[in-house]
Amino acid sequence: MDKRLETFISENAPLIEAEMNRLINSEISPSSLKESMLYSVNAGGKRIRPLLVLAVLADFGKHSEDALKVACAAEFIHTYSLIHDDLPCMDDDDFRRGKPTNHKVFGEATAVLGGDALQTRAFGVLASLEHTRPEQVIRLVASLADASGAGGMVGGQVLDMEGETASLSLRELEEVHLHKTGALLSFCIEAGAILSDAQDDELEQLRKYAKNIGLAFQIKDDILDVTSTTEQLGKTANSDAASDKSTYPSLLGLEGAQQQLDRYHRDAVESLAFLEKEDSMLKLFADYIVQRNT
Amino acid sequence: MDKRLETFISENAPLIEAEMNRLINSEISPSSLKESMLYSVNAGGKRIRPLLVLAVLADFGKHSEDALKVACAAEFIHTYSLIHDDLPCMDDDDFRRGKPTNHKVFGEATAVLGGDALQTRAFGVLASLEHTRPEQVIRLVASLADASGAGGMVGGQVLDMEGETASLSLRELEEVHLHKTGALLSFCIEAGAILSDAQDDELEQLRKYAKNIGLAFQIKDDILDVTSTTEQLGKTANSDAASDKSTYPSLLGLEGAQQQLDRYHRDAVESLAFLEKEDSMLKLFADYIVQRNT
Repeated sequence: MDKRLETFISENAPLIEAEMNRLINSEISPSSLKESMLYSVNAGGKRIRPLLVLAVLADFGKHSEDALKVACAAEFIHTYSLIHDDLPCMDDDDFRRGKPTNHKVFGEATAVLGGDALQTRAFGVLASLEHTRPEQVIRLVASLADASGAGGMVGGQVLDMEGETASLSLRELEEVHLHKTGALLSFCIEAGAILSDAQDDELEQLRKYAKNIGLAFQIKDDILDVTSTTEQLGKTANSDAASDKSTYPSLLGLEGAQQQLDRYHRDAVESLAFLEKEDSMLKLFADYIVQRNT
Repeated sequence: MDKRLETFISENAPLIEAEMNRLINSEISPSSLKESMLYSVNAGGKRIRPLLVLAVLADFGKHSEDALKVACAAEFIHTYSLIHDDLPCMDDDDFRRGKPTNHKVFGEATAVLGGDALQTRAFGVLASLEHTRPEQVIRLVASLADASGAGGMVGGQVLDMEGETASLSLRELEEVHLHKTGALLSFCIEAGAILSDAQDDELEQLRKYAKNIGLAFQIKDDILDVTSTTEQLGKTANSDAASDKSTYPSLLGLEGAQQQLDRYHRDAVESLAFLEKEDSMLKLFADYIVQRNT
């Protein structure tokens, strides 16, 4: 990983994690529920979404007292979606990132409710911003709702489930990922842009960037699923092939998938040209997404 | 039921229902997910929460173009909570209001996701208000998040689950209901007050009203569970006694519970004195809550 990105992550990830804990602990709630929420929030992960919020601000050379909270809101949504995805009635996963899943530790009922409450907390956190103009706060709430609801992430999860029993075209597979993973990643980029007071045309370029890294992220996940071991991934490797799921490698072959990944990466990087920055943090993130091993 | 309340309900409930359908249909989402959301939204119910939002405005003699949307947001949260409560891992109910529960029709996975997306939609709807000052919109989002999250409704659901395996004191039982049912009812009253530009001291009185009708609502539910048949209720009667759950009648006896209900009702009505209105719609709702048969 690039040294500058490594520094950026090692400086910011602990701030994000501390703030998430603070935001959950500051609500008075039953201890079992709080523990369930904190367990999944603290179960690791690359923190790509919240870091992307901060990376946009860094690239614009802007600072916002509220950025950390907005970053946490995005990670709360991501975390709630993982808890619900892992449930027996969904993907039925016992482990995530090498640790028992939420429902294995707290039971299914508390896992459902812990996820529910994390979603709520995300919106509550946005409504608590104190250094952002009210109109911008409302844009953030609207954007997060669009990204994470029936027309975004949750809709993508449904498409993904339905796709498991059908053979998808490349176009349909893209549709799944644009919703399931892409929408929330786009929110992160857009949120950073809103907090940076980006112009409309800049926002347009950033949306292209977000779309392309979202697809790159997923294609890389698919490739890693084929080329890695369970130990390396911290989750079951080769699970896609085992479940006969449509993936980029299954549709394009491994080499074809790699070429597609390179295209998405190139398009993502090209849409950052307006920044006129050699050392754009968003560029380094795009590089990292295609080069990572887990 | 009082004739004026009946008119109020018969005029407004269809508007609320049409608007909820419109708000769900206006999002582009997978059809199975949309059907799941619409199924539970259209599965009947008394619409007490959204009607209370409108009742506050009626009592203040105010009109807001956004009131219907805010009312729907509250009902979306209520509906999502019912879908998740009915899941096998929670109350495991096959029927609600005489109809198969969401997961019986659409399967558990879609029920979880339909509930998730309804929660998201509630916040998205608040962020879409066009006739309310931005500061007030943010107050509404913050208030809904407080009411429905870990410190409110979801927390109450956890307390309720934990209470099923313990014998609760009257104080603890109140604590459960203040969270599980009371918090969202309070949001409805507060939302109506925000849209009516109520003064702080008026809001204070309305909060007392909300707290008391919330407790009255629950105690009445407990009484009906003992005194009604399954047919009358549209859900399994005597379920509390069968599950050995702490309820007002089990703690106070049926007569004691009825007296407590009367006290909550009286306190609720007294806190409306500031309205100086004989025919307060909120008063009629309080009457209805204690007199209803289902």
